[in-house]
Amino acid sequence: MGRRSLLLLLLLLAFLTPGAATPVPPALRALSSLHLSTSFRSRPAVAMKYSIHYIQQKVDHFGFHTDKTFKQRYLIADKHWKEDGGSILFYTGNEGDIIWFCNNTGFMWDVAEELKAMLVFAEHRYYGESLPFGANSFKDSRHLNFLTTEQALADFATLIKYLKRTIPGARNQPVIALGGSYGGMLAAWFRMKYPHLVVGALASSAPIWQFEDMVPCGVFMKIVTTDFRKSGPNCSESIRRSWDAISRLTEKGTGLHWLSEALHLCTPLTESQDVQRLKDWISETWVNLAMVDYPYESNFLQPLPAWPIKVVCQYLKNPNVSDTWLLQNIFQALNVYYNYSGQARCLNISETATSSLGALGWSYQTCTEMVMPFCSNGIDDMFEPHSWNFKEFSDDCFKQWGVKPRPSWIPTMYGGKNISSHTNIIFSNGEIDPWSGGGVTKDITDTLLAIVIPEGAHHLDLRANNAFDPVTVLLARSLEVRHMKQWIKDFYIWCGEG
Amino acid sequence: MGRRSLLLLLLLLAFLTPGAATPVPPALRALSSLHLSTSFRSRPAVAMKYSIHYIQQKVDHFGFHTDKTFKQRYLIADKHWKEDGGSILFYTGNEGDIIWFCNNTGFMWDVAEELKAMLVFAEHRYYGESLPFGANSFKDSRHLNFLTTEQALADFATLIKYLKRTIPGARNQPVIALGGSYGGMLAAWFRMKYPHLVVGALASSAPIWQFEDMVPCGVFMKIVTTDFRKSGPNCSESIRRSWDAISRLTEKGTGLHWLSEALHLCTPLTESQDVQRLKDWISETWVNLAMVDYPYESNFLQPLPAWPIKVVCQYLKNPNVSDTWLLQNIFQALNVYYNYSGQARCLNISETATSSLGALGWSYQTCTEMVMPFCSNGIDDMFEPHSWNFKEFSDDCFKQWGVKPRPSWIPTMYGGKNISSHTNIIFSNGEIDPWSGGGVTKDITDTLLAIVIPEGAHHLDLRANNAFDPVTVLLARSLEVRHMKQWIKDFYIWCGEG
Repeated sequence: MGRRSLLLLLLLLAFLTPGAATPVPPALRALSSLHLSTSFRSRPAVAMKYSIHYIQQKVDHFGFHTDKTFKQRYLIADKHWKEDGGSILFYTGNEGDIIWFCNNTGFMWDVAEELKAMLVFAEHRYYGESLPFGANSFKDSRHLNFLTTEQALADFATLIKYLKRTIPGARNQPVIALGGSYGGMLAAWFRMKYPHLVVGALASSAPIWQFEDMVPCGVFMKIVTTDFRKSGPNCSESIRRSWDAISRLTEKGTGLHWLSEALHLCTPLTESQDVQRLKDWISETWVNLAMVDYPYESNFLQPLPAWPIKVVCQYLKNPNVSDTWLLQNIFQALNVYYNYSGQARCLNISETATSSLGALGWSYQTCTEMVMPFCSNGIDDMFEPHSWNFKEFSDDCFKQWGVKPRPSWIPTMYGGKNISSHTNIIFSNGEIDPWSGGGVTKDITDTLLAIVIPEGAHHLDLRANNAFDPVTVLLARSLEVRHMKQWIKDFYIWCGEG
Repeated sequence: MGRRSLLLLLLLLAFLTPGAATPVPPALRALSSLHLSTSFRSRPAVAMKYSIHYIQQKVDHFGFHTDKTFKQRYLIADKHWKEDGGSILFYTGNEGDIIWFCNNTGFMWDVAEELKAMLVFAEHRYYGESLPFGANSFKDSRHLNFLTTEQALADFATLIKYLKRTIPGARNQPVIALGGSYGGMLAAWFRMKYPHLVVGALASSAPIWQFEDMVPCGVFMKIVTTDFRKSGPNCSESIRRSWDAISRLTEKGTGLHWLSEALHLCTPLTESQDVQRLKDWISETWVNLAMVDYPYESNFLQPLPAWPIKVVCQYLKNPNVSDTWLLQNIFQALNVYYNYSGQARCLNISETATSSLGALGWSYQTCTEMVMPFCSNGIDDMFEPHSWNFKEFSDDCFKQWGVKPRPSWIPTMYGGKNISSHTNIIFSNGEIDPWSGGGVTKDITDTLLAIVIPEGAHHLDLRANNAFDPVTVLLARSLEVRHMKQWIKDFYIWCGEG
């Protein structure tokens, strides 16, 4: 795999397979009935009590050659649900264990009472426990053939119809789709494709335009860089200079050894190709930090302090130092991300390239439909220059999965920038979240709305209320709730029996 | 196959695979460049000059295991097309040879100049020449796996994007989807699912609600009966009584022979099960007549006189006659449909159960997604009572194709009756067309419009202008054009560069 492709895959994996980074304890997986889950480290105020269910889904909604089914997992929390005038908030699960998403979407729990809402969290096929072919699901392209956004949306549609048919009182209730990140794309696309099943969608940090040539491929790294530039003097400049420093250091005979020691790596660098792996891993760390730059202590991808980039930047104030000094500073900075708990004995540069199911599934998705071009130039951003090389990317995909990416399919299917005929979708974006570069950040119509949260990192608004939340996210959430209430009200005026 | 299922299949085949009933001459298929096609028998005013093209389409838009492609055929007529302020009228081809549909959709040719329109006729996969696996396309359920509405719509989407990319001047033009019957459903569904690609749709005689329990299963046969009841005194009553007359006659030893002679059948009835085949064939004839009860001489499913049911009913004025007399009258009536040309030497009761590709494809589609329940009770209609037996239908499908129908999928996918969030679709229906029973005949919103044509048979409005057209269809067409012009105008106001 080409180094650029690897980097991008790593980026995406780190971001989009958080289930892999913080795996759910096996104990939770075994539970099959009501149980109490612990919630946020920072605010365990709302007790997250849900029940676990399964629905038989067709493996292939769009073909009849196979009539096979599999068990899709979903969670229900109905403590605040009211049959009279209530609603259903439906989380369109993304690329990971649904329990993890459930536990990290405190917003839904926080608003359940106000919206008299039943909460439903639907697991995405090929993730968590919802494996169409069990242990063989990732065996080859034949088994992976049913891992697409269209099949996932069809699962959601089938599930909603099933819930309405089987839960007394649910039939004539409005459903709202919610999701963050890739799940946010799914929420938006679900409203676009199945508007008869959901009255609206809240798509948080959903980079639906990070495809083909809809946004410049460099926008993502540019935002990461801005975050670091603004978080401390000379911070991004220190990082920009670190790449050449690494190159210079490792050109020397003892450089690999010295660097392995300086960065406290678990496995020493031995070959020259390890240098690129190291750089990719460091880049990915900065990217991840940009995504989880939350205003309070959190544990999304890693346990982290409040405003972690500010903490990181304290170590990167001076770019005009020797290469060895600069790299020692970089180590201090990395340590904020990898060792906030103080428990780590060494740093593992393979850490996010996990072989968990979630990572596998997402890697396949990026090699088929979810083709997002990324690039950097070292000028507008603090990274080494990398152009977007589709040919190389495609070849790597074919080597790894035996499939060829179709980069223009998602815009063909979901409308690209031409989505103004749809209604009732809120696109919320954190301005410091690098994914906002591919997101909808301006209103399209008066029912296709954009909310931008200046101090917001990756789908901050979907997280539970927190005493340290900036006022902008509080405003965003209150606006979101206001619109959701309006959708619910409209539903009852036009469609409801209740 | 159960007799009821067979009847229903025959009904559908006869209706929805007109390409089979009036096959396109092989000579036409061989042409690969511009040529002049003869058009309507009744009004050859507009010269139908088109060019034939092919596009490589993915066999599977929704999976990546196979990257195979096939050639989809489409026709283009651009005589009246203007780059400046023009439009593209896109016919969403249905279950048959696209040239046949092109020749029977005179409306598009008639309005091309007024709308400065390029006409595009896209062939539906698995019909005509657009066979994903060539001669093997219907071999088994594995090869048929990609025959779905979703794949067909994805072909259309891909084709439209391709045309806009490759035809200079087409890029910034509004596209309107048009279709009749099953093609009308596709036009409506295309606008629902791909509103970024078409600014609106004209769905003529599209029974999008003839699924699950959205309309009573008996509505179709009831409308057929009404057509006959209103076309002549005692007409429907004569037909109603004919079934028992056939039963009584064929109970006797010589009855089968006598009836074979009386009806001039090409192949004599020999077994008792032939009686049901005969009844099914006669029923189907009445159904077909109801669909093509046009106000002028035409040749849609068969060459026919103007208002053919009126002609038929002239032979069916007296139900109070002996069984043999009644059946001799029935023969005269059938002869109107099968021998208007006077060339037929005998009548063939297998006639519509053709083994052409179109018929095969449609049979498969009714056994998978396009599950339309039909029934009759002999009271509200003139047919023998038949209930809708899904189990039996499903078993027959499995025997024939190795697949199981999913009757609730189409409503899940396309919204059933809950489609009010969509815009810019005209549903036109002829009131005497039995398919209007499953159609949208009342406005849903001010941009989801229904047009009902009291004297209209099956998609009369899509046919070429004719001197004998009732004024209601002229009004319908003028209303349709007015809305299409408005969609085009809106497009240029909001989106156009021209």
